[in-house]
Amino acid sequence: MYPTTVKNLIECLKKLSGIGEKTAERLALSILNLDDDVIKVFEQSLKDAKTKIRRCKICNNLAEDELCNICSDKTRDKKTICVVENIKNIIAIEKTNCYHGVYHVLDGLISPLDGKNPDDINIKSLFDRVDNGEVLEIIFALTPSVESETTSLYISKKLENKNIKISKIAHGVPLGADMEYIDGLTLEMALENRKYINE
Amino acid sequence: MYPTTVKNLIECLKKLSGIGEKTAERLALSILNLDDDVIKVFEQSLKDAKTKIRRCKICNNLAEDELCNICSDKTRDKKTICVVENIKNIIAIEKTNCYHGVYHVLDGLISPLDGKNPDDINIKSLFDRVDNGEVLEIIFALTPSVESETTSLYISKKLENKNIKISKIAHGVPLGADMEYIDGLTLEMALENRKYINE
Repeated sequence: MYPTTVKNLIECLKKLSGIGEKTAERLALSILNLDDDVIKVFEQSLKDAKTKIRRCKICNNLAEDELCNICSDKTRDKKTICVVENIKNIIAIEKTNCYHGVYHVLDGLISPLDGKNPDDINIKSLFDRVDNGEVLEIIFALTPSVESETTSLYISKKLENKNIKISKIAHGVPLGADMEYIDGLTLEMALENRKYINE
Repeated sequence: MYPTTVKNLIECLKKLSGIGEKTAERLALSILNLDDDVIKVFEQSLKDAKTKIRRCKICNNLAEDELCNICSDKTRDKKTICVVENIKNIIAIEKTNCYHGVYHVLDGLISPLDGKNPDDINIKSLFDRVDNGEVLEIIFALTPSVESETTSLYISKKLENKNIKISKIAHGVPLGADMEYIDGLTLEMALENRKYINE
């Protein structure tokens, strides 16, 4: 019923994560209303997405050169590596403006049940970084789950004899959250990791 | 923090209807994972969106030629015109497979409060169609609202002396809806428009 061009747009949009038929239709129609210059930038960015964008040789973050913005930044502390599951986690942490080390993107977690072994995610290059560099601390910033526990445990074990500090970010009740609505597991963690304030 | 290409993608996506920062980020990252051939089709469709897609000369529907698929279809009944607010409404009706007339896309509704007068929407060409063609019936398929009532009333008044049947689609309780959750206005309409079944 739609003209072929619109149909093609809808088909492409439907391939994106979380986009169903209805949303794809809405987006395709609103693409038709975009200004000419926006469409040009959009077109060029799509082209560049496949040709220019690659992964950073060191940390596996998105990059347009051999190294990503963070790894090529001389002011960043290369001795602290924050291990994250995916690229979006880096953005979230960068937005806080309080971390000045570098990152390591695993692109997944160890999950034997899903057939994901240590070799299937970007772990080996982390050990290479430890072997080659002067890494002092590794911080795991992973969403709490069985898989993330397995992954951080696996990495910690492998680095046991390396004299590196290994930590994970604190899990607990988020700021502004209503105690009533916090799930039991989070509360349990929050209680376990309680901080004494009268010491 | 993202490479320029990704930033550009995010900016373009944010211009689409209903897409905020977070969704744009998610979509941009999933564009990076699309296959090369999908990206090519996507790129070409974007280009075509501005060059190939235009509005049908008769009904204002999307078209790749002078006339849209529906107006150029010889099997469609050109004597019945279904008036809709926008292009998406056509798709919804076409999906039912039970309407065989043609359409007229208003691209908006009369709404004096928002400064939208009859001249601001695609009404004049509807009168031209009535004057030039052999239109027998006009069906209003508009979402119930003050604006749609105003619009259909305005058009009906203008066509008073034309000897054309004018109707509007039935409004009432939708199939499968739970009576408990139907809003009062819909129920009121449903009661008012009740159909006697013992006649």
